[in-house]
Amino acid sequence: MNVDPRDLQRVLDGRWAAVREEVRTQFGDRSLHPDPDLSTEEYRALTTANLGLLAESRRPHLGFDPAYGGGGDVGGVVTAFAMLGYGDLSLLVKAGVQWGLFGGAVQALGTSRHHDEYLKPIMDGELLGCFAMTETGHGSDVQHLRTTATYDQAAREFEISTPDAGARKDYIGNAARDGRMAVVFAQLITQGTSHGVHALLVPIRDSEGRPLPGVTIGDCGRKAGLNGVDNGRLSFDRVRVPRGALLNRFADIAEDGTYESPIASESRRFFTMLGTLVRGRISVAGGAGSSTQKALALAIRYGATRRQFSDPATGEEVVVLDYLAHQRKLLPALATTYALHFAQADLVADMHELQGFGAAGDERRQRDLETRAAGIKAAATWHATATIQTCREACGGAGYLAENLLPQLKADTDVFTTFEGDNTVLLQLVAKTLLSDYGRRVGKLDLLGKARFGARLAADAVAERTGLRAVLRRGDVRDRAYQRWLLVEREEHLLANAAQRMRKALAPGADQFAVFNDAQDHLLVAARAHVDRVVFDAFAAAVARVPDPGVRALLAQVHALYALSVLEGDRAFFVEHAYLTLGRAKAVTQAVNALCGRLRPHARTLVDGFGIPEPWLACPLLDGEHDPTAAATDPAPSREEPTDLASVG
Amino acid sequence: MNVDPRDLQRVLDGRWAAVREEVRTQFGDRSLHPDPDLSTEEYRALTTANLGLLAESRRPHLGFDPAYGGGGDVGGVVTAFAMLGYGDLSLLVKAGVQWGLFGGAVQALGTSRHHDEYLKPIMDGELLGCFAMTETGHGSDVQHLRTTATYDQAAREFEISTPDAGARKDYIGNAARDGRMAVVFAQLITQGTSHGVHALLVPIRDSEGRPLPGVTIGDCGRKAGLNGVDNGRLSFDRVRVPRGALLNRFADIAEDGTYESPIASESRRFFTMLGTLVRGRISVAGGAGSSTQKALALAIRYGATRRQFSDPATGEEVVVLDYLAHQRKLLPALATTYALHFAQADLVADMHELQGFGAAGDERRQRDLETRAAGIKAAATWHATATIQTCREACGGAGYLAENLLPQLKADTDVFTTFEGDNTVLLQLVAKTLLSDYGRRVGKLDLLGKARFGARLAADAVAERTGLRAVLRRGDVRDRAYQRWLLVEREEHLLANAAQRMRKALAPGADQFAVFNDAQDHLLVAARAHVDRVVFDAFAAAVARVPDPGVRALLAQVHALYALSVLEGDRAFFVEHAYLTLGRAKAVTQAVNALCGRLRPHARTLVDGFGIPEPWLACPLLDGEHDPTAAATDPAPSREEPTDLASVG
Repeated sequence: MNVDPRDLQRVLDGRWAAVREEVRTQFGDRSLHPDPDLSTEEYRALTTANLGLLAESRRPHLGFDPAYGGGGDVGGVVTAFAMLGYGDLSLLVKAGVQWGLFGGAVQALGTSRHHDEYLKPIMDGELLGCFAMTETGHGSDVQHLRTTATYDQAAREFEISTPDAGARKDYIGNAARDGRMAVVFAQLITQGTSHGVHALLVPIRDSEGRPLPGVTIGDCGRKAGLNGVDNGRLSFDRVRVPRGALLNRFADIAEDGTYESPIASESRRFFTMLGTLVRGRISVAGGAGSSTQKALALAIRYGATRRQFSDPATGEEVVVLDYLAHQRKLLPALATTYALHFAQADLVADMHELQGFGAAGDERRQRDLETRAAGIKAAATWHATATIQTCREACGGAGYLAENLLPQLKADTDVFTTFEGDNTVLLQLVAKTLLSDYGRRVGKLDLLGKARFGARLAADAVAERTGLRAVLRRGDVRDRAYQRWLLVEREEHLLANAAQRMRKALAPGADQFAVFNDAQDHLLVAARAHVDRVVFDAFAAAVARVPDPGVRALLAQVHALYALSVLEGDRAFFVEHAYLTLGRAKAVTQAVNALCGRLRPHARTLVDGFGIPEPWLACPLLDGEHDPTAAATDPAPSREEPTDLASVG
Repeated sequence: MNVDPRDLQRVLDGRWAAVREEVRTQFGDRSLHPDPDLSTEEYRALTTANLGLLAESRRPHLGFDPAYGGGGDVGGVVTAFAMLGYGDLSLLVKAGVQWGLFGGAVQALGTSRHHDEYLKPIMDGELLGCFAMTETGHGSDVQHLRTTATYDQAAREFEISTPDAGARKDYIGNAARDGRMAVVFAQLITQGTSHGVHALLVPIRDSEGRPLPGVTIGDCGRKAGLNGVDNGRLSFDRVRVPRGALLNRFADIAEDGTYESPIASESRRFFTMLGTLVRGRISVAGGAGSSTQKALALAIRYGATRRQFSDPATGEEVVVLDYLAHQRKLLPALATTYALHFAQADLVADMHELQGFGAAGDERRQRDLETRAAGIKAAATWHATATIQTCREACGGAGYLAENLLPQLKADTDVFTTFEGDNTVLLQLVAKTLLSDYGRRVGKLDLLGKARFGARLAADAVAERTGLRAVLRRGDVRDRAYQRWLLVEREEHLLANAAQRMRKALAPGADQFAVFNDAQDHLLVAARAHVDRVVFDAFAAAVARVPDPGVRALLAQVHALYALSVLEGDRAFFVEHAYLTLGRAKAVTQAVNALCGRLRPHARTLVDGFGIPEPWLACPLLDGEHDPTAAATDPAPSREEPTDLASVG
């Protein structure tokens, strides 16, 4: 099994390979890492300048409506955006704010009156803007934010106000330094009635960059990372904007103040407006993926040349990636990174189909896309945080130096787990959708079906108590169908139990909050189990599509390592609920170890397959690659560490 | 159970309460957080200035020999040092380098000729120095570092040399800017023979701060954190120092070049020299503990005032710490922090007894201390990394802002897991000692005993296969004795198995490296299990000593949460090896949830018990405490998130 990394790269590049190659060609020969000693203002200025270069490349135009000079290639722009995760994440996030959030909101929530005036300067980077949703007091609970936009019928204007300190817009990218306008989310009030959260386009600075009257702009200052992005705070004191400032695709206000919307339910309208913004979550998951790949490329290449401690038989120092403990730190994480890459590719492709220009809306598929985007964003960003941390540690002191790129990767991606939707809240959203679907499925059963369903639950309980389930379903944990059976059963099991627990809340006099809260952890676990299964399936489908048998065989092993490490991580569940016998649970760990050993010789190929241009990885950490023998000769071949065999037994 | 935090603080302050109070009194009224926008040079200059203030406080003198003006209070100085972890970690590390590593090495490895000349200026902060052990090519494997110190009999001098790039001293604190001398670890060569690693006192800069001839000094530059510390690189090109530069407590060279040492074995001599440096590891564990406590104080106090999403019954927004998922993020981590605090206190007290001035050496106890220090350093620093990360995420966007202190805590403590001994390597050391002890225990059995021992192993295997073990040992997982039984059995089980696996390496023709490597992960798990049990015991003993019944009752619950969260984290093991029945394994999770609920009302008390002065915690994140109603009134009491009950079932 000798695989050419370029063949692997072709598979990973997938549908938007051409966009990827363009980005590599355009930027591949230069280092994208800003001096880590830049002051906040210097780094912001550099990032703004680089944003201008991006605009000149016209790649951001890809994501906009062709009728306005855009490229109409939603999948392409999200793919290109994610590739910035190999380089400077401040630029990635600033670009995401400008073209994804700000431009995306104008495109998706606005109508021709906004598009005619603003899309071109937005695409060209001439009009920089903010996406002012989050408030100090309401981060995750967007529906209850408290900024108001009150329609004044006489003046035919809206008055935007920040009623209290908690309603201040916070952490807003482009606000502290560069933004001229902001898409402001506010409770829309007309004729004395609030109609819930809507978005308005509000100028915040004049052409000289001074805050406009009534607009107070604060600066979030230094952050853990992403210091090239000027996050700030916005408060509004009776700021007036014309009626046309309302982004009115899903709701409008007539001159006389009459509210009208094609969507009757306030809640459904709210989620429809938010749904158009799913692209942000998908983009963050993509950026997290690129960053994780870069960290693994650095740590695995370092681990494949770094030597430490000698083999007692040969006296030669051992390459650290040959140690099982080192393999276990990096290779299952690498397998998961592959798995998420393919799940992400599916997500991007589906989004492209559903949200592309001229695509017909499909409410069910849109809902499925949102749920998957929420789940994969949570999984991918937590995976990035954990993996980049592990990579830093796997490189020891060298991994702590800014010159070796890992510190910046860690600091910049850290916020991904809580922005564009806090991961815990996102998983609750996933759980909620799964429960609704489950309720619908069970509700549809006729009376006989319900009886059968009840009988199955009872039989399940018996099977669990007696361990019969595991005995009945014999299999090899290395078998893909068996792995899938386990993942599907876990998901169904957790969901059925969650539904049962939540049903208690419907009893008369039940404390709904207490019922929900007692089950909260269970719901989160169910959502994660669902995401694991979705990612497993996406990877399996991707492997099946690979034409080259060598690449396919290698990827099948990576897929197996992903599956087995998921099973290993939650093997307590599988044993406790009698899905695995004790022997088979132990076999899972043995299989993970064995696969680590089998994939070890392919580790370099697997990270080369990401196709990250060398200048984006160049750092002193990898200097050892050019002089692999430097650390290999050892003046004192005796071995004291790490274990003294003679003292045992 | 209403506990006054001051009563709790008295228990936590423990034996060195007076030192703690002194530090609080001296620094408690000022903020210790440097401006996050300082340039590297500005931050270094500030840290050096603060080091001078510390020297003026004469607290660093505490750790030195009273015969030279020191305080002779080893436990006191380590306790005071750890408290810097509540403030500026750059200052903590710089102080650790100066007085712990550099001064500590001169004190412990040198003799009167070094003490007379250098101890006073070192204590007074007038002579700043480096601890030059780590090399670029040899971090963990100190024994094989490659710098040489060759004795030139004619000149009665040593010649210090860096033979190649990999032998460059790297990551050395105080090297890039401030250090005037360095304790240099080198292979000592005399009369053509190498005697292994020894330490010499080598001047590196003149009084003007210029590098001395033959000394090349590099700068590690910006790091992930700790940017107030000037880490650098040292290379030596035939640098000459007099014979007396050798720190000669454990070995010396006569004028004619004859090598002499009271310790015959080279390996034992090496570990004796390293053993005197155990204080560094204990100090890092202490600093990690303070940092973790500070992060938890911030996140828990924020979580206790922050509200998000409404209770469907009351319409009131729920305090986020009332959510089970939020409790599970923070409260088990808090319990573990308490557990590690007491284990650390034991470690400090034992070190004080063993290494205090005038203490009689005790090889067995010294070895036990080293093993415990290695294990607790690994546990405490990994716990710090994970918990500070969790605290950052639990504070959402606010946690990402430098003004709220968590980013600096995360970045500064990150390196703790890999410096002063990489955690994985340290756990291997622990495993090695455990295996040696185990081998000795088993070896001591007479023939009959060995037969019985073999029979026990066989019976164990049967018990495991049939699940008999769990049935025979009935108990309640909430019972402390039962918890301990589980932890002890796990440790013994893993150790016995590890010993069996390692014994294979003794077979003729065995590939020792392969045997070791296959078992490496198992060894690490065994070491962790040992540390868990040691920490459990330390916490239990501390609870038993508490006189106040209210405090004792509260701490007993915290102890239970610690124990149960350890059991929960590894419940797959307990079920797979039939130590827990399926029902009891599930009961563990239920008990963790129940304890989270019971400790929730005491969460604020528990973080106040750490006794962190308010100015050290002051940041905008906690502003909500002064206006707790700000976020509580909610204009739209309906609840859409996080779950839609009506759609279920």
